[in-house]
Amino acid sequence: MAVGTELLLGQIVDTNSVWLGEQLASAGVDSHFHQAVGDNHRRIVLALRTALARGDGVIACGGLGPTHDDITREAIAEVMNVPLERDPVIVARIAELFSSRGRAMPASNERQADVPRGATPMPQELGTAPGLLCPVGNKVVYALPGVPYEMQEMFNRAVLPDLRRRLGESGATGIIASRVVKTWGMSESGLGELLAPRIEALDSGGGNPTIALLASGIEGIKIRITAKAADSRAAGALLASEEAQVRALVGEAVFGADDETMESTLAALLMARSWSLAVAESVTGGLVAARLVNVPGASNWFKGAVVAYDSTVKFSLLQVPEGPVVTDKAARAMAEGVRRLVGADVGLAMTGVAGPEPQEGHPPGTVFVGLAIGESEPEALEVHLPGDRERVRQYAAISALDLLRRRLTRAGVVPA
Amino acid sequence: MAVGTELLLGQIVDTNSVWLGEQLASAGVDSHFHQAVGDNHRRIVLALRTALARGDGVIACGGLGPTHDDITREAIAEVMNVPLERDPVIVARIAELFSSRGRAMPASNERQADVPRGATPMPQELGTAPGLLCPVGNKVVYALPGVPYEMQEMFNRAVLPDLRRRLGESGATGIIASRVVKTWGMSESGLGELLAPRIEALDSGGGNPTIALLASGIEGIKIRITAKAADSRAAGALLASEEAQVRALVGEAVFGADDETMESTLAALLMARSWSLAVAESVTGGLVAARLVNVPGASNWFKGAVVAYDSTVKFSLLQVPEGPVVTDKAARAMAEGVRRLVGADVGLAMTGVAGPEPQEGHPPGTVFVGLAIGESEPEALEVHLPGDRERVRQYAAISALDLLRRRLTRAGVVPA
Repeated sequence: MAVGTELLLGQIVDTNSVWLGEQLASAGVDSHFHQAVGDNHRRIVLALRTALARGDGVIACGGLGPTHDDITREAIAEVMNVPLERDPVIVARIAELFSSRGRAMPASNERQADVPRGATPMPQELGTAPGLLCPVGNKVVYALPGVPYEMQEMFNRAVLPDLRRRLGESGATGIIASRVVKTWGMSESGLGELLAPRIEALDSGGGNPTIALLASGIEGIKIRITAKAADSRAAGALLASEEAQVRALVGEAVFGADDETMESTLAALLMARSWSLAVAESVTGGLVAARLVNVPGASNWFKGAVVAYDSTVKFSLLQVPEGPVVTDKAARAMAEGVRRLVGADVGLAMTGVAGPEPQEGHPPGTVFVGLAIGESEPEALEVHLPGDRERVRQYAAISALDLLRRRLTRAGVVPA
Repeated sequence: MAVGTELLLGQIVDTNSVWLGEQLASAGVDSHFHQAVGDNHRRIVLALRTALARGDGVIACGGLGPTHDDITREAIAEVMNVPLERDPVIVARIAELFSSRGRAMPASNERQADVPRGATPMPQELGTAPGLLCPVGNKVVYALPGVPYEMQEMFNRAVLPDLRRRLGESGATGIIASRVVKTWGMSESGLGELLAPRIEALDSGGGNPTIALLASGIEGIKIRITAKAADSRAAGALLASEEAQVRALVGEAVFGADDETMESTLAALLMARSWSLAVAESVTGGLVAARLVNVPGASNWFKGAVVAYDSTVKFSLLQVPEGPVVTDKAARAMAEGVRRLVGADVGLAMTGVAGPEPQEGHPPGTVFVGLAIGESEPEALEVHLPGDRERVRQYAAISALDLLRRRLTRAGVVPA
């Protein structure tokens, strides 16, 4: 549960819930609902009661500061049906923190020492607001600061051990781990049909691990495998075995897993051959180069790029024959031109129409990808991409990288 | 309400709720709670019922896809207590979408045509899943796709007009409007000190409009002005008058407002002079070019770029004198070299160290920006940027664009 009106107004992204979701999953705690609520006493109380009704424990982040709109303490006291009591030890600690910075404690900070009767303060190590561990019947509310690094430190130090103890007492054991297999070039429903028999087999076999598809726009479609197991070694074994099955079913469309990206995969393929790459971009305007240099060590295989946005630059610098530039011929010439200009083993080029207007009679989304490998005859591929200007560019960039990936993955690539 | 187990597991950030929160605030709709829930029928039903009990309307994003874990339709039908009915018109539309891409519709996509009896489908313009407008008593559930750009398009086209109509009927008045003034080159505390007297004056004068600072990383620091008023004209007047005061206090660091970007401001400055631009990138690796081509009509003033990632490309293609390349001299030579190579009025160049390792004795974050305008002597600026590899690159890109912006904004720029 995240507390703060700025979250509801869209002025700030709730990264705390994302981080906590990940930590809870790793710890084997099922996370069923997230909520965000504004700085309003009645609604924080309502949200706390809703959360307690839905689960065994609630983590509430934010609203522990010193200002008048920090009211999480008061709301929790109402839910616990107890008074707030000011803790003189905490007051002294906060005052000391201020004086160590050569400042006097503003009176408003004393409120941060208020503790609902029966709750246990969790000391702060990084800021002023202590957290609160609040028993409510046999359930629990953990109140944490909203500042992400304060929240994270306190969660790891004080909340997680308490959660583990409760999990142990409840007899629950084990962790949840997941792996993401990344694909490009197939539709969500197409992947769904390939995987359907496997998903059904898993479901009827107890549902562990599980497989889910995640359409991720310009990053392609991800296949998430989630496993529950007694420990991380057992979970890792389940994930590895399931990943192998998924890769076998999906085949060439898989370009990586977890932290791997299209460009890191490509980097590995190029380095395995000691090949260097040059890029000529028109429709993508530098996006492909920007992705490639993000791979650590890119200077080992990436020579450079020419963004030939103006047609005259294509003709003069890349030796593209004058004439239409949204053609397979121009894409091949750009790939070969940049390969020679920059002195690389492989040249990759994109030319096309980002929109919103058609160009040379082609509708927006028409993109030609050119590829020149060594002295072989350059080749080209025509693709049709959906979306607005920005998405056509992003899709064109990953489509071009994927074309090269598939070309390098297949047997029989002519050496330079 | 966001639907998807990946949200609870922390595998994806819920940007939809942030975006919707902002839109609802602008439209004068109070947004009291956000929820996220996993792909679980019982819990989606529970979350929908909770949301309907708490408010007059619910926007539910996600779970409208074709796969077996897309079950928002079923959950809404249960909450409405009606059956799902397959709409043949929607089936035909989805089938047509597939055939226009030369593919057959997988059978699983037919599920996307299921409509709870009494609900109205909201047609899709960008993807396959239609949205659903679902009356529940005198309240309403809007079911939207989870893919952000599909969701945003459908919200603007179909949800917002319906919300406005309901607001009008309910007799609610008044709106909240905001404007964002964007700055680059000053610290948050520096801006805070400049604006403090104005913020205090507003606070003591009733707090309308309000001013807040929003550190936005690679986009600089934003100053958000928020006004409440009876209608959008009155709110607009408040915002315009406050924006003028803020601009006067902050000065040259302001590069735009609302939808304006550093590159759109730069485009206007270049077009006012009928000047064209060429870019030479090393440390930024194509990021600057990619930002520039995102400005509609970029072909009117952007000629192209050379990404000289390998030093030999700097020497051979850009005529940079052989020797160290992380220097002001190399930055000037790159700017002048690309200006001549591409045939532009202005050349802009960046060379530097993204990290993590130092280079040529310079620590990561050291960046030289070169600028060549016409036949004038090229100039260079040294900047020191914080952060990891990716952030240094992004900061370097906006810093370079900002240097050119300030140069073109000042009087006395030598004409080409």
